[in-house]
Amino acid sequence: MSALEETVKGLKYNADGLIPAVVVDAESKAVLMLAYMNETALLETVGTGKTHFWSRSRRKYWMKGESSGHTQQVRAIYTDCDADTLVIEVVQSGAACHDGYFSCFYRRLNEAGRWDVVAPKMFDPDEVYKKKSGE
Amino acid sequence: MSALEETVKGLKYNADGLIPAVVVDAESKAVLMLAYMNETALLETVGTGKTHFWSRSRRKYWMKGESSGHTQQVRAIYTDCDADTLVIEVVQSGAACHDGYFSCFYRRLNEAGRWDVVAPKMFDPDEVYKKKSGE
Repeated sequence: MSALEETVKGLKYNADGLIPAVVVDAESKAVLMLAYMNETALLETVGTGKTHFWSRSRRKYWMKGESSGHTQQVRAIYTDCDADTLVIEVVQSGAACHDGYFSCFYRRLNEAGRWDVVAPKMFDPDEVYKKKSGE
Repeated sequence: MSALEETVKGLKYNADGLIPAVVVDAESKAVLMLAYMNETALLETVGTGKTHFWSRSRRKYWMKGESSGHTQQVRAIYTDCDADTLVIEVVQSGAACHDGYFSCFYRRLNEAGRWDVVAPKMFDPDEVYKKKSGE
């Protein structure tokens, strides 16, 4: 087993064999999205230099950007004290969110207890995904 | 029901009633930690302006900093497109990680496939937690 395989095995996965991965923009450090990896998705991410995840709803691997072209080039991978979460620094092509925003976290809680959209829309999802199901 | 209570109810929680909360430093945007909230912990976080979580291992609420004094003053709360993850911007007192680092994500994967510690230690955990169990 390679050092990398040992390291990947050494992380703590949940009952479904998944670990949450917080994807952040390498330059601004803005959180772009959170998605889940299993051992295979993480090895694929390291091996290809592009983020791969396990889709819990579709029960399959996916490469971020496989439909939209909005891939994520990996710059660095971190883990936390408990080794049960990852932070992945990436260079984002286009925008991370299939709703058309650079980050999926485009809504902020306001004083009235409701969500405000606080980011500009960067693309029209209908155009980019051509009515295919979003990622 | 208040607007805030409706908003909190409108988020998507996992089978255990939890939602992951990515805590980031309000200034540098560095990811400090990931922990889990339920509806009550989130309402408590908004109400007090200090982060509260649900501990999955200890099955109880905890305020970040309750043992260490290293509390987190909330500056903003964001949710993502799927409404199943939160980002909480905070001003961190002391350091976020009970291992003594500012961020829990103090280890980076190196070329050889192993973790390197890439952050300076800010305090001695034995000193701060006085041999109490860490947070």
